[in-house]
Amino acid sequence: MANSNAGHVNINSDLGESFGPWVMGNDAEVLKIVKSANVACGFHASDPVVMMDTVKLCQQNGVSIGAHPGFADLQGFGRREINLSAKELEANIAYQIGALQAIAALYGAKVTHMKPHGMMGNMSAESAEMSEAIARATKAVDRDIIFLAQANTEQGKAARKVGLRAAEEVFADRTYTDAGFLTPRKAGNSMIKDAALAVAHVRRMVDEQAIYSTSGKRIPCQVDSICVHGDGPNAVAVSKAVREGLEAAGIRVVPLTELPRLRH
Amino acid sequence: MANSNAGHVNINSDLGESFGPWVMGNDAEVLKIVKSANVACGFHASDPVVMMDTVKLCQQNGVSIGAHPGFADLQGFGRREINLSAKELEANIAYQIGALQAIAALYGAKVTHMKPHGMMGNMSAESAEMSEAIARATKAVDRDIIFLAQANTEQGKAARKVGLRAAEEVFADRTYTDAGFLTPRKAGNSMIKDAALAVAHVRRMVDEQAIYSTSGKRIPCQVDSICVHGDGPNAVAVSKAVREGLEAAGIRVVPLTELPRLRH
Amino acid sequence: MANSNAGHVNINSDLGESFGPWVMGNDAEVLKIVKSANVACGFHASDPVVMMDTVKLCQQNGVSIGAHPGFADLQGFGRREINLSAKELEANIAYQIGALQAIAALYGAKVTHMKPHGMMGNMSAESAEMSEAIARATKAVDRDIIFLAQANTEQGKAARKVGLRAAEEVFADRTYTDAGFLTPRKAGNSMIKDAALAVAHVRRMVDEQAIYSTSGKRIPCQVDSICVHGDGPNAVAVSKAVREGLEAAGIRVVPLTELPRLRH
Amino acid sequence: MANSNAGHVNINSDLGESFGPWVMGNDAEVLKIVKSANVACGFHASDPVVMMDTVKLCQQNGVSIGAHPGFADLQGFGRREINLSAKELEANIAYQIGALQAIAALYGAKVTHMKPHGMMGNMSAESAEMSEAIARATKAVDRDIIFLAQANTEQGKAARKVGLRAAEEVFADRTYTDAGFLTPRKAGNSMIKDAALAVAHVRRMVDEQAIYSTSGKRIPCQVDSICVHGDGPNAVAVSKAVREGLEAAGIRVVPLTELPRLRH
Repeated sequence: MANSNAGHVNINSDLGESFGPWVMGNDAEVLKIVKSANVACGFHASDPVVMMDTVKLCQQNGVSIGAHPGFADLQGFGRREINLSAKELEANIAYQIGALQAIAALYGAKVTHMKPHGMMGNMSAESAEMSEAIARATKAVDRDIIFLAQANTEQGKAARKVGLRAAEEVFADRTYTDAGFLTPRKAGNSMIKDAALAVAHVRRMVDEQAIYSTSGKRIPCQVDSICVHGDGPNAVAVSKAVREGLEAAGIRVVPLTELPRLRH
Repeated sequence: MANSNAGHVNINSDLGESFGPWVMGNDAEVLKIVKSANVACGFHASDPVVMMDTVKLCQQNGVSIGAHPGFADLQGFGRREINLSAKELEANIAYQIGALQAIAALYGAKVTHMKPHGMMGNMSAESAEMSEAIARATKAVDRDIIFLAQANTEQGKAARKVGLRAAEEVFADRTYTDAGFLTPRKAGNSMIKDAALAVAHVRRMVDEQAIYSTSGKRIPCQVDSICVHGDGPNAVAVSKAVREGLEAAGIRVVPLTELPRLRH
Repeated sequence: MANSNAGHVNINSDLGESFGPWVMGNDAEVLKIVKSANVACGFHASDPVVMMDTVKLCQQNGVSIGAHPGFADLQGFGRREINLSAKELEANIAYQIGALQAIAALYGAKVTHMKPHGMMGNMSAESAEMSEAIARATKAVDRDIIFLAQANTEQGKAARKVGLRAAEEVFADRTYTDAGFLTPRKAGNSMIKDAALAVAHVRRMVDEQAIYSTSGKRIPCQVDSICVHGDGPNAVAVSKAVREGLEAAGIRVVPLTELPRLRH
Repeated sequence: MANSNAGHVNINSDLGESFGPWVMGNDAEVLKIVKSANVACGFHASDPVVMMDTVKLCQQNGVSIGAHPGFADLQGFGRREINLSAKELEANIAYQIGALQAIAALYGAKVTHMKPHGMMGNMSAESAEMSEAIARATKAVDRDIIFLAQANTEQGKAARKVGLRAAEEVFADRTYTDAGFLTPRKAGNSMIKDAALAVAHVRRMVDEQAIYSTSGKRIPCQVDSICVHGDGPNAVAVSKAVREGLEAAGIRVVPLTELPRLRH
């Protein structure tokens, strides 16, 4: 697979996951590193005021804004499996994107991508039916929204099938199975916590446009974006190292909206 | 005050107030009577799936779709006083309108008006600050949205002040105090349950472009829309009589979007 | 299996499933028929005020009060699968039983049984681990509470294992598979809507202390209680017929707490 | 007013205010300082699992467990005014106490006091009607529960009127108005952030059994308990200093349940 975005890559992160009086993450720090933000929409995290504050911070940092819809389960943070019909999923996706679009409009900002959160992300990565429902709803709301997809999963396929652009992402701090999925969090080796290792891992994926599994299997894919995290003991340090490592290699780190080419 | 919509009036009603497994109201019946629907947005009632079903029903009946944002209080149905800052109110308004816009987009439909629900409606009717926050947020989301305002209250003034069109509504089945506000529900004479009385009440308000209080006080106002209800023992019968009474008098009952002229 | 409650049986129903402004069911009618109520506890339905009203109605009708804990999912009415750890399940069960106990205490009433609701009921019927977590939590809260179990499932076994009394229930208006589980609602023949058929079905199960599947398979079990429903077009009529049919056959219909003998 | 607890005082704090994935406060640290914990019950903060963890930590630290019921408003953290009828308030209080009692029962622990949280606390401090509803509901649930009341307010009066024991608390890090109420948080001088000042403030209140307002007014009251906080930059340090200051003065710091005498 040819790298259509040679010399460019995006870095994205999940942001705006505070809720009411409860603060989560280091948004201010992470916003200095990433170029695109996946903003929680009030179902698994966040609330209308947190969304306003997050949109404003994104704007101030030149970070493109994406919706991060999840299952309606605050207490479980959208990490519990919930089986929804295609219609329920479409309704939940549209609702959350629209809510963020309107919050963004308060600042004259736009929602330019969408990435399903947590268990909704994991389930849809393996389900064409779910991914197509998500893509259909997204396209109905705004056909210019980019589907930020876990690389090589049903998500990107569904996006292209319904006529949305997809950006394929890999994770800086997570490892992969031979099937190309994220190693489940329960496994001991699911996380990459060492900054140097994360940088090397990301560089290899970007250079070769391929995922490498924990067993060393090479899985070719398009690598449009790198997902980093701001929670965990040294997550910000790892994320910063990844950005610096990419730039040191002459790669331009840009918002999703400025990638030269995204596949339809 | 000259009647700028001579020969035309709108009829609106609150719809889509079911939630999950719980059904409320007679939407199918009411949709045959009204021309504009105020659709609950998931904060005081409804959920994403109910919103989809409601939008579809509105479309099928040629009824224009409005957002009906309320306080985030399902158990209290948005009827309890909650004091929000202007920022919180803007965030809550934008979120709910946007959510409905996106749900409507699933059917290629548009949200063309906005009316604050329940206690948010009552509080803002008397508060310039609240009404302006609501109007500002609405305009930021879509400057073409019509603010469906309780006649002669701060709502319409705020809409015009921020540059939104306002439609002024009176109630078919509710009485008024000398101050021009709705008689509180606790009062014995707050409701008009007799169809003939409701028709006469509405006809007089439309003909004279004025509210009449329970004590007989005449309060001139613009009457762009009549609000009817579908709940209560004979609410549907009253609503139907009101529509028939207006049409029998040669008045055209149209969606808010087809009123000849709305004040800015 | 000998019928340890010869000549006696209980009739139970799910009650108190309204929420805020939304009414569900015909509690007033159902309370004239049943002798034990499974009262929703605010997670899948109900709220503190509805719980108060339901407890009071139970008391006035001489109906024994049980907790009906469910998954925390109002919009899905506790009918969606949610996977909880044993600890989460214990926490959710204890919380809901305790909440109802305290509401009951406002009227000097007691919670004397517990029955898991909806999908929590269905999942635990097939899971020893879930049923034991439910039983353990229930016993910790009050060792005298009766576990109202779907007959011949893991529920009754778990109750007896941890040292709670169990009452085994069969359904008046639902059919059974050869495995002894309820026919899924999606299947065409899952419901028995004819009163005469329901009476015959129940009489046979009580007389023979056995379930009969839709294919005619006989599955011996203890039949301590009959579950009836108040929703659906003729559910109340079916329920009434069942009670009258049992009494006409000389069987005493009593609260769970008055069954002569429940297995430990 | 004679100090019926001469030589003894309690220290209490609000605990267990995390929710789902969101952590709040320094419970582990605060539990080493206080002798009684006001445990959130899931309405303004917490959830069943957090409640379990909090109860366990209290037990391990020899800290007596109290319910801290609040308004059902997670996003607003129970700090927004909500007007409830007496019946609604009773229902909400009973529900939350009962939920915590049952969670406590999972560890063989007991709920021995109750203190209304946040805005429910502030509103009831000035309202005999609200305080009596809270006290009535509490007594119905368990007549041995101690009402932990803001000193000299309607709370203690109501508790004694309905026949509950009340413990009167003052705040270590908050100042008072001449009316004996807490200085509103908006005011610049509402907080005492200096440890030495807090110790002196508390010592004087305990020694003299009186509150001193910011203007120096002396308001005699019973001082059974000192409320400390664990949030804020140096809250733990202030709390620790207060406990050490009391013990250095020969005062025994004990759980509410071990105060020699509480007024009925």
